[in-house]
Amino acid sequence: MTFSSKLIEKAVEAFATLPGIGRKTALRLVLHLLKQDKQTTEQFATALTAMRDGIQECKSCHNFSDAELCHICTDPRRDKSLVCVVENVRDLMAIEDTSQYRGLYHILGGIISPIEGIGPSDLNIDSLAERVAAGEIKEAIMAISPTIEGETTIYYLTKKLQPLGVQVSAIARGVSFGGDLEYADEVTLGRSIVARMPYEAK
Amino acid sequence: MTFSSKLIEKAVEAFATLPGIGRKTALRLVLHLLKQDKQTTEQFATALTAMRDGIQECKSCHNFSDAELCHICTDPRRDKSLVCVVENVRDLMAIEDTSQYRGLYHILGGIISPIEGIGPSDLNIDSLAERVAAGEIKEAIMAISPTIEGETTIYYLTKKLQPLGVQVSAIARGVSFGGDLEYADEVTLGRSIVARMPYEAK
Repeated sequence: MTFSSKLIEKAVEAFATLPGIGRKTALRLVLHLLKQDKQTTEQFATALTAMRDGIQECKSCHNFSDAELCHICTDPRRDKSLVCVVENVRDLMAIEDTSQYRGLYHILGGIISPIEGIGPSDLNIDSLAERVAAGEIKEAIMAISPTIEGETTIYYLTKKLQPLGVQVSAIARGVSFGGDLEYADEVTLGRSIVARMPYEAK
Repeated sequence: MTFSSKLIEKAVEAFATLPGIGRKTALRLVLHLLKQDKQTTEQFATALTAMRDGIQECKSCHNFSDAELCHICTDPRRDKSLVCVVENVRDLMAIEDTSQYRGLYHILGGIISPIEGIGPSDLNIDSLAERVAAGEIKEAIMAISPTIEGETTIYYLTKKLQPLGVQVSAIARGVSFGGDLEYADEVTLGRSIVARMPYEAK
């Protein structure tokens, strides 16, 4: 791609470092910004630097936060006897979007993966154990992807947390709502029969 | 989508104003920037504001430029008797990328479109006529999309430029290289037969 301007070239290269954005898309975005007035680009740049400079990690749950403690940890309406253990912020947001959970969270920052060289000490596990040991938490819900690494992480956490006197549970696995049984994979379908639940007619 | 941080929310909203980027993608980009060190975001923001503040429109051809005249207009190796008329910067870049053209350009900034209310006075047509009237240009090549609006624009420009003593030409239309004849649309295939060219065996 030949650029008529070093300034454009640098802006395109900056956009192209972002995941999923190639040079053609980057150019489209840059030309879009050039069509808008200068203020738009300034506000865009300010929003990004303000975000990067101002953001903190919540001291309790490791969520991204504008203050020392995030708005979930400080919310008095939250059930402080429940902690939902998730891999990352995106999983937390996905659960929040369901509006089905009113407890606290704990973000691990990844899962145990020997292949990628991620061990328990690389994750926020000690701070979770400390929170549980403090006594207020009665149940730790493992909301971790049902992969081999995920199961390993859940096993490790269970061994670590149960001696502290906390109930460990995992989110339900089974066939998706609205999904056709014939398209469910064998493992999921098999487990969902083994883990069948009594049906409650409402 | 529930955000744990106003700062993140603002950054996501800023990204989501860009074309083709929805809120989910915007969040992915923001979380990517949060994973990098602060410098990355700063450099990114600086590249954008520097670009938006520093960019100029070339006084001669209306290309984006870092100076009063763009690097194509000031390049002494360029053939100044040729001007290639294009709709926008992206078309200019596409032609530059072919490395087949060594003349100058003129960017119209759009094409005549009565439906969208774009008339000749909204485009950089007067400045093109001035450049042609100056006398150095011998041929004006219309590199404009073969649509109804494009054809209208070419017709208008030809009527305007020919009296000034310049040769007007249009880029060749026909079936694409590597394309299957049976998949070419009827108009293109029909015209390519009418406009057939003597074959030169090399």
